[in-house]
Amino acid sequence: MRTQVAIIGAGPSGLLLGQILARSGIDNVIVERQSGDYVLGRIRAGVLEQTTVDLLAAAGVDQRLRHEGLVHDGFELCFDGQRHRIDMKALTGGKTVTVYGQTEVTRDLMDARREGGHTTFYEAKDVQLHDIAGNKPHVTFTHQGEHHTLDCDFIAGCDGFHGVSRASIPADVLKTFERVYPFGWLGVLVDRPPVSEELIYSNHARGFALCSMRSHSRSRYYIQCPSDDKAEQWSDDAFWDELRKRLDSATAQALQTGPSIEKSIAPLRSFVTEPMRHGRLFLAGDAAHIVPPTGAKGLNLAASDVHYLSSALIEHYAEHSPAGLDHYSARCLRRVWKASRFSWWFTSLTHRFPDTGEMGQQLQHAELDYLVNSPAASAAMAENYVGLPLEG
Amino acid sequence: MRTQVAIIGAGPSGLLLGQILARSGIDNVIVERQSGDYVLGRIRAGVLEQTTVDLLAAAGVDQRLRHEGLVHDGFELCFDGQRHRIDMKALTGGKTVTVYGQTEVTRDLMDARREGGHTTFYEAKDVQLHDIAGNKPHVTFTHQGEHHTLDCDFIAGCDGFHGVSRASIPADVLKTFERVYPFGWLGVLVDRPPVSEELIYSNHARGFALCSMRSHSRSRYYIQCPSDDKAEQWSDDAFWDELRKRLDSATAQALQTGPSIEKSIAPLRSFVTEPMRHGRLFLAGDAAHIVPPTGAKGLNLAASDVHYLSSALIEHYAEHSPAGLDHYSARCLRRVWKASRFSWWFTSLTHRFPDTGEMGQQLQHAELDYLVNSPAASAAMAENYVGLPLEG
Repeated sequence: MRTQVAIIGAGPSGLLLGQILARSGIDNVIVERQSGDYVLGRIRAGVLEQTTVDLLAAAGVDQRLRHEGLVHDGFELCFDGQRHRIDMKALTGGKTVTVYGQTEVTRDLMDARREGGHTTFYEAKDVQLHDIAGNKPHVTFTHQGEHHTLDCDFIAGCDGFHGVSRASIPADVLKTFERVYPFGWLGVLVDRPPVSEELIYSNHARGFALCSMRSHSRSRYYIQCPSDDKAEQWSDDAFWDELRKRLDSATAQALQTGPSIEKSIAPLRSFVTEPMRHGRLFLAGDAAHIVPPTGAKGLNLAASDVHYLSSALIEHYAEHSPAGLDHYSARCLRRVWKASRFSWWFTSLTHRFPDTGEMGQQLQHAELDYLVNSPAASAAMAENYVGLPLEG
Repeated sequence: MRTQVAIIGAGPSGLLLGQILARSGIDNVIVERQSGDYVLGRIRAGVLEQTTVDLLAAAGVDQRLRHEGLVHDGFELCFDGQRHRIDMKALTGGKTVTVYGQTEVTRDLMDARREGGHTTFYEAKDVQLHDIAGNKPHVTFTHQGEHHTLDCDFIAGCDGFHGVSRASIPADVLKTFERVYPFGWLGVLVDRPPVSEELIYSNHARGFALCSMRSHSRSRYYIQCPSDDKAEQWSDDAFWDELRKRLDSATAQALQTGPSIEKSIAPLRSFVTEPMRHGRLFLAGDAAHIVPPTGAKGLNLAASDVHYLSSALIEHYAEHSPAGLDHYSARCLRRVWKASRFSWWFTSLTHRFPDTGEMGQQLQHAELDYLVNSPAASAAMAENYVGLPLEG
């Protein structure tokens, strides 16, 4: 079996890359370790930058997004029992974000791929990459008991932090940077209308809290929790009680609670691998970098990687120019590091850290006080939140 | 002996307060532990915010400052061997800073006080504050072998971090916040023209460096050094060698070196005391708070404390209103915390920290790259650097 681009992973990065390449007439095959239902069952972020929305539109997969996505012009920061609105749209000359769950993005991309008749191998076992630094890269795997060899020009590693792609690069070639935060996020999904039309990020003495949503009828709430907590330890009631304590009183009173339809704890981590290319293997999304979820940059960074990678591959096939491929890693990493910086900063600003003491809390408070009162600082935050522009 | 306001300390805070009060017809006496020459010999910061310049002008002590002060419209950030200018004036709608050494400010204030004929006791021994929480506050001290009792309405504690004023407040009344940085600044004063017309703050793998100045012919340079280094360990040659390594090559080549006329190591510390008032004692400047020197906020914060305190005292005597005095601490602290936040942030952005690893360095680099390329982020930095506006 042969294709032009073998894509490892059928999450949103891999599917979006496949979709863009297919529309440009570049043949591709996706190999995914899990089943499609498993991929759709992963609950992830739900805030899309304008850039990501534009990429999905350019890829022709924004029909449902345009109807069901909730366009947000701002968000709120809560501290000292008061909410303060950051008017993103006004501060960035008209840019917004769109609330639309990663699950929905994935579903739309799966539907488009099925309609396009492009090949995806789900539940592929024993996926291995070969000759990635040479001229005959290929992927081997077993699917429904049958062994396959997929020859290709390039391999796109879109298989996440734990995937085989990054692990296939010799360790001495990669430089990795990592920071693990001393807490996690306990998240609950509930079929109740969101407490507020916009997201609320709360800095509270008891810890961070976030009121988010997936739709007008489905809400997503998070609270900072100790790293070693287990979701099973938290009853729904305990979660709602704790969440209410971390919000201003008006929000706490307005909160509509209900039985959780999903409850899980996610660790917080900053991780970056350099470079994002090795020979004919190109890493994209979580395979190369992880950001803490504060500010929802993970999926958006994956989308900008895919933008740079698809542009480079299209340039390669159309113009026989290696320039885009050669610049891929550096171009991605500049944006990756800036988004990592923002995610780290926003996390540092809003969470309780066990080791920074009361001075750390006072500095957080001073920064929040400054931030909501300075148009320049609000604008800097807003431009990061809506997403820094894609470069050249 | 009786006065309206007893001022402890004849540094710039105490002298400026005395000057402003005297011009409003409020009698005051300054009590200083050291000699005048000793006070003038202390080498401190040299960058005045516009607000501080305006206060000195309003106090009638800006004649020499206007002639000799160097107005700076911008400063430079150096990283990756490149310099990037922050155009403060353009970014803040015309605000600037003025380079004029703290020693010169002190000298001008001393001259004005001598001309005004107001009393200062230098080399006062065994200074003690009494009944600060009651109705008959007074100060006792020994001067030239003679014991004095100074009765007053109020005491202004302008005697710095190690002074008697803060130490006179019962410990259970004060809340203190502190962070000590794991490095110091080795500073050298030299009679050579500055290497650049504007200040250069350099983030380098070997550590922070700063090119500053006092005049067109006198320069002040600093390098980050281990906390436990001694100035005597550093020969002039070793200092210049190390400084050059931390600058871009053009700056390193242009550097004019010479014999140091002062060389010392200062620790870096963030410290804030709350509240800044206890009964009839009001703390101002370093007596209440210390910032790391990055961004030169120390003297400027002292000046804004003095502004709030003098306004409150004038209001008290003219209108018999306690409002200003009652709000003094909260009003100061809001600005103090914001400047402490800025000083901490600017220090964190530009210095090597032993415990944040390569990830910390990458995040610094991403922030610098973002900062110099984002007009909003540059504007936020510039508005802090020139000084946040005084509030009502």
